[in-house]
Amino acid sequence: MKKLMNDPTNVVDEMIDGYLKAHPTYIQQSPKNSRTIVTVRETKPGKVGVVIGGGSGHEPGFMGYVGDGMADGVAIGNIFASPSPDPILEAAKLVDKGSGVVILHGNYAGDVMNFGMAKELAEMEDIRVETVLTTDDVASAPKEESEKRRGIAGEFFGFKTAGAAADKGYHLDDVVRVAKKTNENTRSMGVGLSPCSLPQTGEPSFVLEENEMEIGLGHHGEPGIEKGQIQSADQVADRLLNDILADMPLEKGDNVAVLVNGLGSTTRMELYIMFRRVEQVLKEKGVKIHRSYVGDYMTSLEMGGCSITLMKLDEELAELIDYPADCPMFVQK
Amino acid sequence: MKKLMNDPTNVVDEMIDGYLKAHPTYIQQSPKNSRTIVTVRETKPGKVGVVIGGGSGHEPGFMGYVGDGMADGVAIGNIFASPSPDPILEAAKLVDKGSGVVILHGNYAGDVMNFGMAKELAEMEDIRVETVLTTDDVASAPKEESEKRRGIAGEFFGFKTAGAAADKGYHLDDVVRVAKKTNENTRSMGVGLSPCSLPQTGEPSFVLEENEMEIGLGHHGEPGIEKGQIQSADQVADRLLNDILADMPLEKGDNVAVLVNGLGSTTRMELYIMFRRVEQVLKEKGVKIHRSYVGDYMTSLEMGGCSITLMKLDEELAELIDYPADCPMFVQK
Repeated sequence: MKKLMNDPTNVVDEMIDGYLKAHPTYIQQSPKNSRTIVTVRETKPGKVGVVIGGGSGHEPGFMGYVGDGMADGVAIGNIFASPSPDPILEAAKLVDKGSGVVILHGNYAGDVMNFGMAKELAEMEDIRVETVLTTDDVASAPKEESEKRRGIAGEFFGFKTAGAAADKGYHLDDVVRVAKKTNENTRSMGVGLSPCSLPQTGEPSFVLEENEMEIGLGHHGEPGIEKGQIQSADQVADRLLNDILADMPLEKGDNVAVLVNGLGSTTRMELYIMFRRVEQVLKEKGVKIHRSYVGDYMTSLEMGGCSITLMKLDEELAELIDYPADCPMFVQK
Repeated sequence: MKKLMNDPTNVVDEMIDGYLKAHPTYIQQSPKNSRTIVTVRETKPGKVGVVIGGGSGHEPGFMGYVGDGMADGVAIGNIFASPSPDPILEAAKLVDKGSGVVILHGNYAGDVMNFGMAKELAEMEDIRVETVLTTDDVASAPKEESEKRRGIAGEFFGFKTAGAAADKGYHLDDVVRVAKKTNENTRSMGVGLSPCSLPQTGEPSFVLEENEMEIGLGHHGEPGIEKGQIQSADQVADRLLNDILADMPLEKGDNVAVLVNGLGSTTRMELYIMFRRVEQVLKEKGVKIHRSYVGDYMTSLEMGGCSITLMKLDEELAELIDYPADCPMFVQK
């Protein structure tokens, strides 16, 4: 598959280089670790630091979400690979203002190991660090083993609420509480239509037939729960919502944030057609949509398909979702 | 090619439906014409109205740019087809506050005819309307026939500056002057790597071999100026910049806005790698980058490839580029 790149082994570093040059009023690179990027902006004294991170290839996740009201720093891994502990530790050190640091990451073995190690290393340097996992993908494990679930697009909601809480001056324990509450109230499920290819191999990450889709496919091409002929947008949306709502029932009067997330090559047209059905179904149930996000928020390179994420809101989460943000790849007034 | 849709004949109307439901705090549909969308927000008394529009399939263009500091209304055509005069006239009527309306559109035969007709119809209803064309694609006609050039991603800069000027209270003639000055100082050139397919046919819009790229390809698959084997990102960027800078020479000390625009399925990673080279070349020339945009601002469904746009700024244009904006698909603080 064709890509606009130079040496395939340098794609992540060249992306970072371009990113830094495009947005110097937002971000800067650590002088000690090229895979650590932090905000250039003066954050409030005593603010809890928020660090995010993960593999590359999910842009705007993760580096696109460093900015006011979101993360203060990010650790950047190779494509679909966890960052090593070093850039994570470096990010924690740079963003700590003495009030501790919350690190948010997805539930993948490499991330759990490396972010956990970075936490230990930071604590040895007397920085208080708490990590919070995202486990929103209902297709990746049954409800009774929900702690084994992968984190997918729902991670965005955790960045949004924890980032807002930290910016509002919440203490570390409360930022952690908000991040955990967000995860507990967030469910996602995706559908894959076409694969991406890794720059170094050029080979598709999985194979689907010409008219095939895969329900529950993971963000790195992890197998889903069902392959079958592609259905209509409404049928696909119904299918995804069905599993999400079975896992997190919603009642009349409930308030949610909705994210219809494109995986990379799916058009906004298709995403809005999917959203249209989500709105219909929620309206029929009497569920109120507080705020909607439709677009590419957490991609898998040029993978085709999308995911639906619902986050059940209480008053606190609604306020944090509405809080403004200003990052290179995400701005909310 | 697989798409998430229901009846292919309804994709545009279902997209609009989803769009309206996702962003009710921004936009509303005309009760008289389903293809006209206008802002819900109270604009300043006496503000010049700004109307944009064109075919669907270019999202966020055009409907994504209705909001504060950008357009007040949009007329929406079928995929890659001009809107008819009716929704354009309706948009002009709805956004006119007695100070006249500027209509911005790309230079395509259907658009020129229909937007021109809408202008005449509006004038018959005593609304003063001025239309301004965008002709930024240097690949589409030689310099001496620049009035024949197509409008591509550079249209975004026209929406940005004219929208800001109108919001700042400029008179109609001055909004028109700003829009024309923007176009005169904006140049784009693109590269295509892979085709999109129209929902109704499912057929690719053009054919490229596995390792082929096409320089100068249009936004609807119009033939470019050169087909050849895909080159490195730096070589492609150099090639596009070479033609842009031959057409609009820049000198040391000049100030520009840069847009590296994805056509639909090209990853942010590749776009930032392209931007990296643009920055290097401009830096070598002593040209200052005032502001950068990297992402999908004007797509061609799921086409693969990108375009580079440079806009030469004077003090007025720089101020208008920096002016805040708040639209469903584009927010700038």
